[in-house]
Amino acid sequence: MSEFQLHPQLAADTLPVASLPLCDVLLMNDANYPWLILVPRVADASELLDLNEGDRTRLWREIDIASQALREQFAPDKLNIAALGNMVSQLHVHVVARFKGDAAWPKPVWGAQPARPYPAEESVERLSRLRDALERFVSAG
Amino acid sequence: MSEFQLHPQLAADTLPVASLPLCDVLLMNDANYPWLILVPRVADASELLDLNEGDRTRLWREIDIASQALREQFAPDKLNIAALGNMVSQLHVHVVARFKGDAAWPKPVWGAQPARPYPAEESVERLSRLRDALERFVSAG
Repeated sequence: MSEFQLHPQLAADTLPVASLPLCDVLLMNDANYPWLILVPRVADASELLDLNEGDRTRLWREIDIASQALREQFAPDKLNIAALGNMVSQLHVHVVARFKGDAAWPKPVWGAQPARPYPAEESVERLSRLRDALERFVSAG
Repeated sequence: MSEFQLHPQLAADTLPVASLPLCDVLLMNDANYPWLILVPRVADASELLDLNEGDRTRLWREIDIASQALREQFAPDKLNIAALGNMVSQLHVHVVARFKGDAAWPKPVWGAQPARPYPAEESVERLSRLRDALERFVSAG
């Protein structure tokens, strides 16, 4: 079994937020939506079913934590949670805060709009808020 | 709290497959993809976070069961799993068997192609295969 390495496409499209017990949490570099991506640090995993039961439980727990952080920080109208992986097969889960009237609403976000990279200052502020919120929900768990 | 009732849009778009401990399992009436929808029988739930912890655990387990059934019956190239709910807010989870070269590949299925309803005989055969497979994976769990 090879060692876990973040897929270069995911690394290129995102900013690193935090490291949870199982997953790296990344912020999609797209200011259209508050959009987190969770990547379990497990080599060669592509489907949820590729994780052992303990890791699957940890993943669901971390999806809950990411959802709680987005909900607290952005009060979205809807959360969208998805494991697709048709383009990048490395297992990763999208957790996206959606708003009525956002750039893709009510469609799914994938491929709907060109990414709008964060201005540097805005990304610093957003990453810091998200780190604080994730840490609090991890501690509360 | 009101009583659970399947959303009329979900009822209209699907064929009933099975009733698991938490969820109704529905087959999207779209022969473009083997596409299951899991609907927890919990009134007024819209987000995963609206479920209590026991029900959330049951839901993840039933997503695994649906995934195993699709994988066994169709040997897809990829599973797509998603809780979106931008159009129909009643909590429901898509579990879709995807193939390189299917009608939407590699894009997500939502809105990609008009639904292609199953011919009656094909739906009978597909529902029966899916029921058998779900039952086996429930028993094995």
